[in-house]
Amino acid sequence: MLQTGSGIAAANDPLPSWNDTAAKQSIMEFVERVTQEGSPDFVPVEERIATFDNDGTLWSEQPYYFQLAFALDRVKAMAPDHPEWKTKQPFKGVLEGDLKAVMAGGKKSLIEIVAATHAGMTADEFEQIVTDWISTAKHPKTGRLYREMIFQPMLELLVYLRANDFKTFIVSGGGIEFMRPWTEATYGIPPEQVVGSSIKTRYEVRDGKPVIVRLPEVDFVDDKEGKPVGIHSHIGRRPILAAGNSDGDWQMLQYTTIGRSPSFGLIVHHTDGEREWAYDRESHIGQLDKALDDAQQKGWTVVDMKQDWKTIYPGE
Amino acid sequence: MLQTGSGIAAANDPLPSWNDTAAKQSIMEFVERVTQEGSPDFVPVEERIATFDNDGTLWSEQPYYFQLAFALDRVKAMAPDHPEWKTKQPFKGVLEGDLKAVMAGGKKSLIEIVAATHAGMTADEFEQIVTDWISTAKHPKTGRLYREMIFQPMLELLVYLRANDFKTFIVSGGGIEFMRPWTEATYGIPPEQVVGSSIKTRYEVRDGKPVIVRLPEVDFVDDKEGKPVGIHSHIGRRPILAAGNSDGDWQMLQYTTIGRSPSFGLIVHHTDGEREWAYDRESHIGQLDKALDDAQQKGWTVVDMKQDWKTIYPGE
Repeated sequence: MLQTGSGIAAANDPLPSWNDTAAKQSIMEFVERVTQEGSPDFVPVEERIATFDNDGTLWSEQPYYFQLAFALDRVKAMAPDHPEWKTKQPFKGVLEGDLKAVMAGGKKSLIEIVAATHAGMTADEFEQIVTDWISTAKHPKTGRLYREMIFQPMLELLVYLRANDFKTFIVSGGGIEFMRPWTEATYGIPPEQVVGSSIKTRYEVRDGKPVIVRLPEVDFVDDKEGKPVGIHSHIGRRPILAAGNSDGDWQMLQYTTIGRSPSFGLIVHHTDGEREWAYDRESHIGQLDKALDDAQQKGWTVVDMKQDWKTIYPGE
Repeated sequence: MLQTGSGIAAANDPLPSWNDTAAKQSIMEFVERVTQEGSPDFVPVEERIATFDNDGTLWSEQPYYFQLAFALDRVKAMAPDHPEWKTKQPFKGVLEGDLKAVMAGGKKSLIEIVAATHAGMTADEFEQIVTDWISTAKHPKTGRLYREMIFQPMLELLVYLRANDFKTFIVSGGGIEFMRPWTEATYGIPPEQVVGSSIKTRYEVRDGKPVIVRLPEVDFVDDKEGKPVGIHSHIGRRPILAAGNSDGDWQMLQYTTIGRSPSFGLIVHHTDGEREWAYDRESHIGQLDKALDDAQQKGWTVVDMKQDWKTIYPGE
């Protein structure tokens, strides 16, 4: 029997930060169905693959992706070595805090910023840079560390799934090497279970040490139809559960759930303008439009953050 | 204390198919060192990553890579739909059993054969084709199923490492999707822990079903300096143990062991012309030359199949 009917969180409630609404019930019913031996929907342990988008699904993503905040901070930190940036967009805009000037350059500007801040060093060096930043950088609005702006209910869901022998993966449009240094400590997801966008790398020996060098060239974009491709390449099995929050996750949800039973699609809908942010169809970050339209017909569970979550961030 | 000194296999000997020689001892000493809490060489569980080449390291590879045998069999199976192959090399050579004519075309011919046999279908279809072949195809010389030409001592090593909380990966020049359908049942290595060469794929919906389509274009070659790149991309951590058998594994061994301690490099040296094959420096398949020269200086353990292994294949 489910522990969710009483309205009082049972001591062994695996999802205590979730209100006792339909979303929580549908998750728990699915997990019970696929893990109960003898059930017609039983799924062997090795097939219990669950994939989670990161930005907007496991942590916040407003007012812009946290990886962009990282890149902007890097531009500032690197500026003393690049005097030419003082007069050269998009770097000039970053240094003067004029984000409009940066954004005016569109995708080309963003690629220039990423190339300048994410490439040219070894993988070990980049890992250290990310580790330092994620340990100290704080969000301007909440004053929290970015890595504390993760969603407590989703952490519980990850733990709950792993307790039921699911293997949990991140499948994110974000940079794979921006995530890997901290996902194990933060989400319990080790580097080898992180799939993301990547730049090209080259193996070489520097000063007698073997290193991976990061090149300023995009290798793979893990978004939209890239997500099933990334899942196929890195995992090699189709998930039975996928969670996302935007139209960039539509194909992953489709790949996971269409023509495949049992399966579970979950959409985090940002509805809480007070505790987090409220946005969907019109947002430039994390736009959720088509997937919201299709959720009911496809049988995807839409999580209403305001209604379904007791707490947003850990320790609240 | 090690269980290997008595000359009589102890009941709890984890490597019973290994003779009590220096190779076995160095492996067991390494595993004891890195797993013993309080040891200066203790390695936390999550960092116990071990990577294994496949062809020539976990199974045989003579007289040519078994994946080529698969491709040749596929040409024959597909020939009725391709009447033009009767007069067109390299397919003509395959159909007439004239391997010299096939090889005369060099790399270009092999790419044509791979493109014709490995692309154009969905990933699910290809998985089924591989599954059918690996379940039935037999080696012309031994009469064994190819998948029974795996090395019993290496199976024991995989089990032994996992019993000591290592995570075992395949990192092979072979095709990632040629291996994944059978590595879990054969080696206990699940698809998500297999790294290999790959062709490009595309996500699409066919007849209402989401599928991954295999394209006739090389995406990644997981050989030589590609191996550290593949490890970095798929695993995101540097292994502490790597095993190979050819110069194609040299960079993986270097990446795993140089400037990194504790670490362990292992080379399977094919020295047994009676029970398996004997080849190294001059072989076109699995050439072992530079890595053999460098092994002593680099501290890599060279396994002499004839001297160090009691049995080669399971059930012998």
